[in-house]
Amino acid sequence: MDLKSIKDPEFIQACNRKELLDIAQDIREFLIHQLSVTGGHLGPNLGVVELTLALHSLYQTPKDKLVWDVGHQTYVHKILTGRADQFDTLRKYRGLCGFPKRNESVHDVWETGHSSTSLSAAMGMAVARDIKGTDDQVAAIIGDGALTGGMALEALNNIGHQQTDLTIVLNDNEMSIAPNVGALHSILGRLRTMGRYQKVKDDLEFLIKKIPAFGGRLASTAERVKDSLKYLLVSGMFFEELGFTYLGPVDGHDFDDLMSNLRYARDTKGPVIVHVLTKKGKGYAPAENDAKGTWHGLGPYKIESGEVVKKPGPPAYSAVFSSTLQKIASNDKRVVALTAAMPGGTKLDQFGAEFPNRMFDVGIAEQHATTMAGGLATQGMKPVFAVYSTFLQRGYDQLVHDICRQNLNVFFAIDRAGLVGADGETHQGVFDIAYLRSLPNMKILMPKDENDLQHMIYTAVQYDDGPIAVRYPRGNGYGVEMDEELKELEIGKWEIVRDGKDVTILSFGTMLPIAQVAADNLETEQNVDVRIVNARSAKPLDDEMLKELHEENHPILTLEEASLKGSFGSAVLEHFHDNGWHHSVIERMGIPDWYIEHGSVPELYEEIGLTPEEVSKRVQALIPRKQKRA
Amino acid sequence: MDLKSIKDPEFIQACNRKELLDIAQDIREFLIHQLSVTGGHLGPNLGVVELTLALHSLYQTPKDKLVWDVGHQTYVHKILTGRADQFDTLRKYRGLCGFPKRNESVHDVWETGHSSTSLSAAMGMAVARDIKGTDDQVAAIIGDGALTGGMALEALNNIGHQQTDLTIVLNDNEMSIAPNVGALHSILGRLRTMGRYQKVKDDLEFLIKKIPAFGGRLASTAERVKDSLKYLLVSGMFFEELGFTYLGPVDGHDFDDLMSNLRYARDTKGPVIVHVLTKKGKGYAPAENDAKGTWHGLGPYKIESGEVVKKPGPPAYSAVFSSTLQKIASNDKRVVALTAAMPGGTKLDQFGAEFPNRMFDVGIAEQHATTMAGGLATQGMKPVFAVYSTFLQRGYDQLVHDICRQNLNVFFAIDRAGLVGADGETHQGVFDIAYLRSLPNMKILMPKDENDLQHMIYTAVQYDDGPIAVRYPRGNGYGVEMDEELKELEIGKWEIVRDGKDVTILSFGTMLPIAQVAADNLETEQNVDVRIVNARSAKPLDDEMLKELHEENHPILTLEEASLKGSFGSAVLEHFHDNGWHHSVIERMGIPDWYIEHGSVPELYEEIGLTPEEVSKRVQALIPRKQKRA
Repeated sequence: MDLKSIKDPEFIQACNRKELLDIAQDIREFLIHQLSVTGGHLGPNLGVVELTLALHSLYQTPKDKLVWDVGHQTYVHKILTGRADQFDTLRKYRGLCGFPKRNESVHDVWETGHSSTSLSAAMGMAVARDIKGTDDQVAAIIGDGALTGGMALEALNNIGHQQTDLTIVLNDNEMSIAPNVGALHSILGRLRTMGRYQKVKDDLEFLIKKIPAFGGRLASTAERVKDSLKYLLVSGMFFEELGFTYLGPVDGHDFDDLMSNLRYARDTKGPVIVHVLTKKGKGYAPAENDAKGTWHGLGPYKIESGEVVKKPGPPAYSAVFSSTLQKIASNDKRVVALTAAMPGGTKLDQFGAEFPNRMFDVGIAEQHATTMAGGLATQGMKPVFAVYSTFLQRGYDQLVHDICRQNLNVFFAIDRAGLVGADGETHQGVFDIAYLRSLPNMKILMPKDENDLQHMIYTAVQYDDGPIAVRYPRGNGYGVEMDEELKELEIGKWEIVRDGKDVTILSFGTMLPIAQVAADNLETEQNVDVRIVNARSAKPLDDEMLKELHEENHPILTLEEASLKGSFGSAVLEHFHDNGWHHSVIERMGIPDWYIEHGSVPELYEEIGLTPEEVSKRVQALIPRKQKRA
Repeated sequence: MDLKSIKDPEFIQACNRKELLDIAQDIREFLIHQLSVTGGHLGPNLGVVELTLALHSLYQTPKDKLVWDVGHQTYVHKILTGRADQFDTLRKYRGLCGFPKRNESVHDVWETGHSSTSLSAAMGMAVARDIKGTDDQVAAIIGDGALTGGMALEALNNIGHQQTDLTIVLNDNEMSIAPNVGALHSILGRLRTMGRYQKVKDDLEFLIKKIPAFGGRLASTAERVKDSLKYLLVSGMFFEELGFTYLGPVDGHDFDDLMSNLRYARDTKGPVIVHVLTKKGKGYAPAENDAKGTWHGLGPYKIESGEVVKKPGPPAYSAVFSSTLQKIASNDKRVVALTAAMPGGTKLDQFGAEFPNRMFDVGIAEQHATTMAGGLATQGMKPVFAVYSTFLQRGYDQLVHDICRQNLNVFFAIDRAGLVGADGETHQGVFDIAYLRSLPNMKILMPKDENDLQHMIYTAVQYDDGPIAVRYPRGNGYGVEMDEELKELEIGKWEIVRDGKDVTILSFGTMLPIAQVAADNLETEQNVDVRIVNARSAKPLDDEMLKELHEENHPILTLEEASLKGSFGSAVLEHFHDNGWHHSVIERMGIPDWYIEHGSVPELYEEIGLTPEEVSKRVQALIPRKQKRA
């Protein structure tokens, strides 16, 4: 069928099996074709084609609610809810979002991006329904990886206790973003092969019937065994223990199996888990046979060959981080690396290949990773938790309470700091300076380029007076020359990268090129002489340099890729006023007080005015006399 | 024995059973006597007397590591490690901390206060040991309540997967702070009564032996049943599934039972859970028979009668919150209240008694509570999550990603904001303004007194344009007159409570009395005319009033009980500079950049200079001309 003609998912309810199979095929072809051009999360979406069709044929959205965990697997849902015609703009500026988005469709009832939130949200919706006395159905769809996140387990526990009437579809695709980690996964793995459990149950029931022949002792045993029968259904054990009805495992690519189980779940009162086995990349060989997770989310590719289009370029910041840490760890046995299910994204897989005993992938568990790093630090190790800026938000209390309060030597390598582009607002790493800066003992560094980064990595490993964070952006460096020798930087010393006598730009981290272009323009066009500082640390500040700036009475512009509420620029303001330097002209540029949606980073810079032109304008406004002279 | 003569726990290893029983008795008497004077966490500590003795006789601290979850149950441990003579200063300023404290003793290897952190910390320590190749033993002691926190489940999952060699002592006392909530608790409850499971196992083994008599069909069943035997040991099921060896349940007040199981656990490789049943308040009738949790943590009491010494006083802020919410909920069916295991502390138990279907205690699960509130909000309900300032830190990512990003109408009633006193640094609520203020869409209010609070509660419930937080302190109000009618305040409008023409104090929330005393003194002693503003909201600010202040060129002092890095005062600085008002004299007072230890709130104010005297000094320094005139 012409997928672009779909306006509403209602039509699916009238489809027969044959029609559903045809639509599934059409959707697969559409996705493989579209994403070969735009890129996107191909693997996860090919895995849920049948599941999504089955759900939409059983749940009448928007009256009923489908809550998609993580949300990058909602392309099929987007197609079925009338958005196929927008796929050319997928993950592009002002285009179709790669995650559920409430302002895109009434069928998107909950937005995601981070994992493990769907069960709590679904419970809230189900509880609201019960209070209001309406009859809408609620289902959450969650992957096996997301289920290991602490909040999902909190929710399972609470839903089981409350016996909330909802369905959880456990989309068990064997692999979250990386091969999944943890004991829970082993359980799920075992369940996959447990067709025989039904047989054990049958056998036992047969046994029980025979038992009277054994006399009194076994009669009473029989009773106990019968009590215990439920527990013998090991497949559902874990969930049944928590108060759920367990159904499955269900073949996630078999409509009949899906429909009968999902319908039964929907119509069963109380909480039900439907354990669905799916295959990521289903129907497209290169994605099905993906061992490394390449096809989870990717850029454009060639359909025939499955060749991924790669742009050559300077090394990624993540790669510089991991290779530098490897170099250091060869001589420093204290170094232990941790990741929360992001060995590929953080490039720690490379570190782990060399030091398998000193690298821990703890699963989607940032709280645990943060505090485990603290435990390591108390024993004289140097733990390095490499984590995306937005995901470290999950470990905030552990930062406050365990790490900073106890002043433990943990090194947080904060990847994807600043704007991240196509993943959009759930993934922009713009709050970390604000949430870290108010914590006593924390140090916060950011490099101006990849060479600066390698020295900061080294510096952070050497630092032994408490927690330290080095934040660095997504994407590639500039291809600058890399020093052979790693050197220790003085923490709290900034670097003047261009001198000037009229005005100073304090640039935090990777905003430097923008400052430099602005300074060049200001010099040639306005005769304004700009000093640029590579302000390497947001905490501590460079007190000495700030004192000089105060004494020179330089107007100051702070420039950063972080929230304007409470980040680097705010620290500078606080410093001036706390020192009684009340009359300084200080302006700040950074991320405004709203959530920045998806788009390329340059487009987003343009939207929020983080451009050389805007910097020039702001600088000129700071020194009106100069303007006249020019 | 004379407990004050203990210097080191080593002596315990030589004690026989009789001596241990005597010491246990001495410790109980000591605790009951000491805490009747100082107050403290009596119930939890009486519950772990035998357990702590057993642990110290099996683990040689500090070489071996004992990690105590939450930490308010470490009084026995403190006695055994040489601190009995400091109990007169328990929880007092510069006195013995109510939680583990690394600078108190080498035997305190990890500090706690918030729950559910011990497993991650212990895993870190055990992993460090394995990397270093030393042979120290690690044990974590965690309560059944703390086990429901997401990070504890993340850690269980990861420890089970890694097969880390450590022991987890599950201190199952039936009640965390409030009667514990959740499906996990039901499982534990069932285990308590499962003496019979061993019997089921025996019976089944007997059955299997008989099975050949049944012929082929049953022979194969026998094999399967044998495979399944492990699962029949339902008691340990949950933990065994996760990869742990399960021991128990063990009688936590029986030395023989404790010693044999704990020794076996210590000497077993890989992760072991010892499930210990204890009774809170054991050995002191009033605390044993405590249905309401009064004896969990309390002030002084009379030993004979068990009568708790109560100081009469104005209503607590928490009580005003709950009763106001009750009043509103009678007419507003949208109101749903949530707590994370703090129905007593937040006083929501009172709300729940009237509206049992609209009050949810989700257990120690702040992440889940935050997002569940979001789910409720999407369905037109008005969820109110009452939570301590420090505990909401656990829900930070959910605030960023689920609530503020989707701009959902969730009302956060932030209790225990500001300094909390005797609980000390783990519980001081001083970061919330900083961590909330950088989040787009969030509103942050704080009342000047309990009457202001009731109007703010009403205002927050009426507010329907996104998330809103009202923060209020621990303890009692001032006994001010309470208005009969609730009224809606204009959000972002501040109140001038005293006019003055020389200088303005912007007081956020409950700092007002300090400002008023300072202003009185300044007027009578220095002829300085101080304006005082009840700055009701830290976000949004009162733009109009700030503009007037700028135009009047008033020196400004901001005053708040929150971190000086990034809180209310910083917002004022940002506002002035962002508007190009660069020449204003603005100074800030608040919580300095270190963790504030325990003590009475007035003592802590004194330590950090949040006093009328200091305010007077700072104000005078702002207006040197005035000083001369006087």
